[in-house]
Amino acid sequence: MKDTMAESTIAYDPASFEALRFHTVTKAFRAGEDSPRDYLERCLATIADREPVVQAWVVLNESGARAQADASAERWRRGEPLSLIDGMPIGIKDLLETRDMPTQMGSAAYAGNFPRRDNAAVWALRQAGAVVLGKTVTTEFGGPEPSKTTNPFNPRHTPGGSSSGSGAAVGARMVPATIATQTGSSLMRPASFSGSWGLKPTQGAINRGERQTASMTAHGVLAGCPEDMWLVAIEIASRAGGDPGRPAMSGPATTPPSRKPMTLAVMEAEGWQRLDESSRRAFERVIEQIQANGVTVLRRTDDWAVERFEQALDGATNFTNAMTAWEHYWALRDSIASNPDGFSLRTKRFFIEVGQQLGATGYEESLQRRAAVRATYANLGTRVDAVIAPSSVGPAPEWLGDVPGEELTRWPTGDPAFGMPSSLLGAPAVNVPMLSVHGLPLGVQVMGQPGTDARMVAIARWLGEALLPVST
Amino acid sequence: MKDTMAESTIAYDPASFEALRFHTVTKAFRAGEDSPRDYLERCLATIADREPVVQAWVVLNESGARAQADASAERWRRGEPLSLIDGMPIGIKDLLETRDMPTQMGSAAYAGNFPRRDNAAVWALRQAGAVVLGKTVTTEFGGPEPSKTTNPFNPRHTPGGSSSGSGAAVGARMVPATIATQTGSSLMRPASFSGSWGLKPTQGAINRGERQTASMTAHGVLAGCPEDMWLVAIEIASRAGGDPGRPAMSGPATTPPSRKPMTLAVMEAEGWQRLDESSRRAFERVIEQIQANGVTVLRRTDDWAVERFEQALDGATNFTNAMTAWEHYWALRDSIASNPDGFSLRTKRFFIEVGQQLGATGYEESLQRRAAVRATYANLGTRVDAVIAPSSVGPAPEWLGDVPGEELTRWPTGDPAFGMPSSLLGAPAVNVPMLSVHGLPLGVQVMGQPGTDARMVAIARWLGEALLPVST
Repeated sequence: MKDTMAESTIAYDPASFEALRFHTVTKAFRAGEDSPRDYLERCLATIADREPVVQAWVVLNESGARAQADASAERWRRGEPLSLIDGMPIGIKDLLETRDMPTQMGSAAYAGNFPRRDNAAVWALRQAGAVVLGKTVTTEFGGPEPSKTTNPFNPRHTPGGSSSGSGAAVGARMVPATIATQTGSSLMRPASFSGSWGLKPTQGAINRGERQTASMTAHGVLAGCPEDMWLVAIEIASRAGGDPGRPAMSGPATTPPSRKPMTLAVMEAEGWQRLDESSRRAFERVIEQIQANGVTVLRRTDDWAVERFEQALDGATNFTNAMTAWEHYWALRDSIASNPDGFSLRTKRFFIEVGQQLGATGYEESLQRRAAVRATYANLGTRVDAVIAPSSVGPAPEWLGDVPGEELTRWPTGDPAFGMPSSLLGAPAVNVPMLSVHGLPLGVQVMGQPGTDARMVAIARWLGEALLPVST
Repeated sequence: MKDTMAESTIAYDPASFEALRFHTVTKAFRAGEDSPRDYLERCLATIADREPVVQAWVVLNESGARAQADASAERWRRGEPLSLIDGMPIGIKDLLETRDMPTQMGSAAYAGNFPRRDNAAVWALRQAGAVVLGKTVTTEFGGPEPSKTTNPFNPRHTPGGSSSGSGAAVGARMVPATIATQTGSSLMRPASFSGSWGLKPTQGAINRGERQTASMTAHGVLAGCPEDMWLVAIEIASRAGGDPGRPAMSGPATTPPSRKPMTLAVMEAEGWQRLDESSRRAFERVIEQIQANGVTVLRRTDDWAVERFEQALDGATNFTNAMTAWEHYWALRDSIASNPDGFSLRTKRFFIEVGQQLGATGYEESLQRRAAVRATYANLGTRVDAVIAPSSVGPAPEWLGDVPGEELTRWPTGDPAFGMPSSLLGAPAVNVPMLSVHGLPLGVQVMGQPGTDARMVAIARWLGEALLPVST
């Protein structure tokens, strides 16, 4: 294994990395010079090449995908695609139900679970003609217990969690896009660690279907480019809507064009003090470039509203995690009753026990605190176009497994400090892959007010287009 | 069948009707003079007697219930009951998952569905020691398509929907309490038609578990008396909490004592004009008694805030129904893909088609309208302690099935006009069984501001205790 690992290391350079794209080929589909079936076969060839080390997939439905791709090819031939993502091969995080593949949630307790239904996003993707290729690996129930997946740029490092396979599959150029979900930092962290574009939408803006049992989770998209990322998101939202009681994500049918902001605020959150020197230097060079473009950048030392926001975020990681843990408490306790041995010690200790400690009364108090943090953030939103921050606390850390006899690591898939705020705030956030630190990807995050998803994508595109990538 | 029907008619008189109670026997459990097992056997005897005509149950788990009752008896013997409802036999509406019984949702498409998990409320009831006796009949997916259940006081009449079996089982004295759910009028209407006490809690105040895929549904309780109703609700809420993102129902561990209000508003909603003369006379006699007790009663002609609220409710039934229909659209479409013949024409026409017509954009506009209606209601809440209204548009109508060749009846389980407002407003509402119209039950509804569940139960108890029942 060690040799394979060394061979599989690819130094990431954001200036030269060519991500897999889909929106660039549809013209050729129309012209009959390429086809969804050929595109799929190229994806399958990459998967055959990389999967033995990356291990991004739980299950692939190759024959089903080939049939879907052939049907799509026929629609393109007739000039009648169902949408701009008709024929796009896509991976679905294994927390979401799919009628043609099992849904095992990275959990021994759900081994073989096969409900034969589609999640709302999956249903919408099929309506849009996308090719549902397989299920991507998730950590156990989307929590801290890591999975088999490795980082596509260095297999000694974590791909991030919980959307481990969704990030790795895009980073390894296996598919142009995947569906990921965020609880805590579960989309932003793997996006950052895999060099993918990532959209964590406004809370509730993309229908989570059967997965409504938490108040701070979102279904989002990882992709090789902002165009594919946006197309997948808007095609889902326009068909399946938002969560019950929430407006669907809205915006143009094609990707919002690049838009330069006037004012940005830097968010330090709980991660800034833990950021390594190289990552900090890379991020500061982004800030310098932004300012050189005439954009005002406010930091906590410049502006009381930024400082108040930072103060409000103090302790956000544990606070957010505890609320989510309580929301899942009854369901996990019920699952344990069926399968007492089907849960890792890490999930039990850092999730189920934490939820039990909070309880119904502690949760109600937390709801009040959350409302106060959100009010502080809304106030900041009147003063800046967006917030920017590193997307993770440095690049992907090394992870070679638990060491028997030693204390359990709290966050083996990476520190969640920079992803937690968007979950807590219900805010849209976009990962821009533009930094490399010691040969591994690190993203820059653009976070907005709830409902401003399209505007955040426009600002993120501006960062990606107007600034130079940075390697440290 | 016709003879059986005539035999099975029981003229309902609220002054003499003796509902089945549970809280009154726990003292005897403690003293060893009665036991949960004996109580269960009495319930099973009633079921054996009434079920052939009433048909309230989809499935009974008699052996499982006997084992649970024996375990409870042992706890009472030791003086260590898990809660005040330890040993209470209870029926669960067949929309909620139960690990020991199938969950078929009144739908051919879900025949044999057996997920082997517990809904949050069911999980909490088991933690509290309740005896989960069986699944009560629901209309198809909780919608307008009626079920086999008949009204416990006259089998030619509907028991109301969608919690048909939950209402009928309590009205027939088969069990002291059942879990019901409300979408539209699905709890308040069967409570009214069956002479049961009913609590439709604040939106989100009782965790709906896996059933989060609508923004205006609630899990509530039907019971023979306010004490049992409250105990079941608070024992669930204290264990399973509220929905994710919502505070749990809070209040005393035993039933809130009777409390006389200062000011009440009468709600006419869309039902008042359709109310028959006898029902209107019965309700007016309640109002006269309330006023005779020194309570101020405001009507739309007395007060601009009441009038504005009534105007805001205009069209509420269709409006609320369409929003819920859109929220279920993707899931029902996905189910139809698996089982094209598994849906009634009524569900397709009055639900799936209505949702499709609304769409994502129409839904977003509806969210804005809903917010405006809720603001109007919040304003009214500053002026009155509660709103009162009939719980249904008269007593249960006759229902003998669709007539082949004739147009489909829109609401065969009864007009939902008086139940819709509490769903639309996310408001708590309590049914007080205190009227009889032509020998059938009719309830009086007490509705409050979100979060005031305990106070509404206290006012409802005052109505039940301070006023005389009325028969017309």
